[in-house]
Amino acid sequence: MLTKDLNTQNNFDDNIISALTKIAGKENIITDSEGVYAYSFDCAHIPFNKKYPRIVVFPENTAQVSDILKIANKYRIPVIARGAGSNHAGGCAPVKGGIILHFSKMNKILEINNQDLTCKVQPGVVVGDLQRAVKAIGLFFPPDPSNLAVSTIGGGIALSSGGPRAFKYGTFKDYVLDLEVVLADGSIINTGSQTVKNVTGYNLTQLMVGSEGTLGIVTEATLRLIPAPETSNVMLAYFNSIENAVDAVSGIINNHLTPSVIDLIDKKTVQTIENFCPNGLLCDKEAVLLIEVDGDRASVSAQENKIMQICQEYGVQEIELAKDEQHKQKIWTARRSAFGACAQLAPNVITEDVVVPRSKIAELSRGIIEISRKYSLITMVMGHIGDGNIHPNFALDLRDITQKNNFEKAKEELFKLSVSLGGTLSGEHGIGCQKANFLPLVLDKTTLNLMIQIKKVFDPNYILNPEKML
Amino acid sequence: MLTKDLNTQNNFDDNIISALTKIAGKENIITDSEGVYAYSFDCAHIPFNKKYPRIVVFPENTAQVSDILKIANKYRIPVIARGAGSNHAGGCAPVKGGIILHFSKMNKILEINNQDLTCKVQPGVVVGDLQRAVKAIGLFFPPDPSNLAVSTIGGGIALSSGGPRAFKYGTFKDYVLDLEVVLADGSIINTGSQTVKNVTGYNLTQLMVGSEGTLGIVTEATLRLIPAPETSNVMLAYFNSIENAVDAVSGIINNHLTPSVIDLIDKKTVQTIENFCPNGLLCDKEAVLLIEVDGDRASVSAQENKIMQICQEYGVQEIELAKDEQHKQKIWTARRSAFGACAQLAPNVITEDVVVPRSKIAELSRGIIEISRKYSLITMVMGHIGDGNIHPNFALDLRDITQKNNFEKAKEELFKLSVSLGGTLSGEHGIGCQKANFLPLVLDKTTLNLMIQIKKVFDPNYILNPEKML
Repeated sequence: MLTKDLNTQNNFDDNIISALTKIAGKENIITDSEGVYAYSFDCAHIPFNKKYPRIVVFPENTAQVSDILKIANKYRIPVIARGAGSNHAGGCAPVKGGIILHFSKMNKILEINNQDLTCKVQPGVVVGDLQRAVKAIGLFFPPDPSNLAVSTIGGGIALSSGGPRAFKYGTFKDYVLDLEVVLADGSIINTGSQTVKNVTGYNLTQLMVGSEGTLGIVTEATLRLIPAPETSNVMLAYFNSIENAVDAVSGIINNHLTPSVIDLIDKKTVQTIENFCPNGLLCDKEAVLLIEVDGDRASVSAQENKIMQICQEYGVQEIELAKDEQHKQKIWTARRSAFGACAQLAPNVITEDVVVPRSKIAELSRGIIEISRKYSLITMVMGHIGDGNIHPNFALDLRDITQKNNFEKAKEELFKLSVSLGGTLSGEHGIGCQKANFLPLVLDKTTLNLMIQIKKVFDPNYILNPEKML
Repeated sequence: MLTKDLNTQNNFDDNIISALTKIAGKENIITDSEGVYAYSFDCAHIPFNKKYPRIVVFPENTAQVSDILKIANKYRIPVIARGAGSNHAGGCAPVKGGIILHFSKMNKILEINNQDLTCKVQPGVVVGDLQRAVKAIGLFFPPDPSNLAVSTIGGGIALSSGGPRAFKYGTFKDYVLDLEVVLADGSIINTGSQTVKNVTGYNLTQLMVGSEGTLGIVTEATLRLIPAPETSNVMLAYFNSIENAVDAVSGIINNHLTPSVIDLIDKKTVQTIENFCPNGLLCDKEAVLLIEVDGDRASVSAQENKIMQICQEYGVQEIELAKDEQHKQKIWTARRSAFGACAQLAPNVITEDVVVPRSKIAELSRGIIEISRKYSLITMVMGHIGDGNIHPNFALDLRDITQKNNFEKAKEELFKLSVSLGGTLSGEHGIGCQKANFLPLVLDKTTLNLMIQIKKVFDPNYILNPEKML
């Protein structure tokens, strides 16, 4: 892990606090201990090392971010950008203290361009808000992380977030055209262009996407939009084993179909969802595929029929096609409540995020269940099967040392399993501080060293989100 | 432009030639002056500085590439990777002499995985060959540079090549999952993973894509495939002005339609194509849109009808819908012959590649015509209007100093015009040595400096494709 002598809160001078207050305004900072406590963890909420930020700043514009970074860089103070803090890998945890830059006041949709099919947004815009705004004029921003009601564009860019629709539409990285970025020394650059194609110099945009705030702070993004599909529909296809569900997915793909979503939910997850908030899912089947198709009306109807036929060929036990908009929303509500529903089972729910080549998904799922049994963990298997991306949800009590240790061992085995199947450590949640130690499982020394050298180019004093990823 | 003291052919030791011969085998090298001459330029064929490579090597595997680079790095010899040499920006020109690494013997499709929707290929595979191979099993590799009958995967990766279908399907960058890369010092890395999602460390894959062989030499690529659309059809829609054609494109997009192709061809280009090889295009209309739609049969038919209706609303003069496969191929043959057809007009044809936000395309087209008039250049305007990407083809005689100077002035004005409209220097052809001097038009000093620092991380001795891009 990269680390350097950084100024933590212990030697964080009052003059620095004054300078930051002067930049952002008194109304835009928090320094009291109760206040900063709330920003000492994120959705991974593992009590890493109980470091608190010394100050939380809510910048209102790019110039303020630049001025703050100039000070932070001069005095070697860690800076951690934060949106909703809804990430699962400890990416926003201020493990070395320092400054939290909270982007909730830079949350404007600056422009939606109906002709160029682009929009300009600030990083604090909530993903769901952007989706609604562009939908209102017939456009579409596909990335749909499950927490889109709160998660922000800045977070999506930091992690290249995906979501169910990634199967057809890809993840955040596929929609970012240009980023305004404040570098560690406070200088401001633009990484790309306002055009949908651009091969003018190295692709700094994609270097920034997924870099978890370790290379620069994104203060504005130009995103690509696409015309909204005319309509969509969703169905649930129940199978008596995960293997059969996986086979049906292969059947769908081999038949040239590209649903917008192919998600898998296992029995335990379905039962947990239904127990939390009954939505009429069938609790006695081993696996259910949630399949969404979209396009023009003729195409959606043709896709539905073909998929139902293919599912029959692969021994589906039951199929439920949404009858109307309300029914569709009910199915989606059930799916999106999965993570929350798991909270009934134990004080902590940890969502993992492994990804393998699609053909290995049955093997991965079996392995997850075996590992969970071995370590007596309550585990729910679900994920974006069309992408080979599984999110096992582990419900446990981290205060219980045995459970905690078992989980740590299970996690390591899970990552090793994923890698042994040709997969990797994260599909869409990132590395954060939770997985940083495991990077050598997938990156050799030469590659890791290249990444460290790149980090040094952008952030020679290692002030940006220290101890994350590398 | 980055430059360092490099070993050019003048002090290129015979011992080095022997060592390279030993690595690659006698049958895999060219050193005689007639032989190396053929590799002293590429499709840009401007006689840059008349440097010849000292040796052309045809490696057969990654280990040979690694061994060659170790020697080149030790003795500071320039190394230029080359596929078909069909690029338009002088990206393969050995402007400092050195070693051409020609990938025609690393041209194997190593694997097509029908379940994971991926393939593994060597860089010398011809794009069109890959497309045919995957099509045979119902899969689809969308990027379709116009020269796909000869251009290679390695070149496509080096430039993030696009083509007409980029409007719906994006460019090469959207299909690269993993690259095996030999670094300047001969070490071999993999940049990504075999999975469709991956946020494990910095995105070295996308840093490599579009880097024009200046950061490493790609020796293997894992590419994403998608299910082939069931069918497609193509139409030609003629308009009495470029503006009207542009308006119709906006109408199509505003109606939520996403054709696979929306190309524009101006009257002069149509006339040139028809004069070269009659395909029945109408020569008296100011602009024609070539529109392709794809999907399942129901959808294609619905899209065709809607687009024809929209074109009527926007004052189309004539619409020709392909009646059958033969008719479709005839239209595509006409389109793809455009560049070749221009060769009738003058000894040199130079294709430019500017890109602007879609809404500025009419303004860009008008500007191109004005600039051409000002400098008495024969210019044909065509391009991927759906992407805002125009390829003006300039037909001229570069031996004529006046014409040459006029072209240079026109080129500079063209780039400035593109930038003033919010566009950039290249959408899919790259920067090469032709546009390197113009980079400061779009990249400020801080950004350029970041790119130079990245170059230094990967290639501290500047041996990889020197004087290209940066």
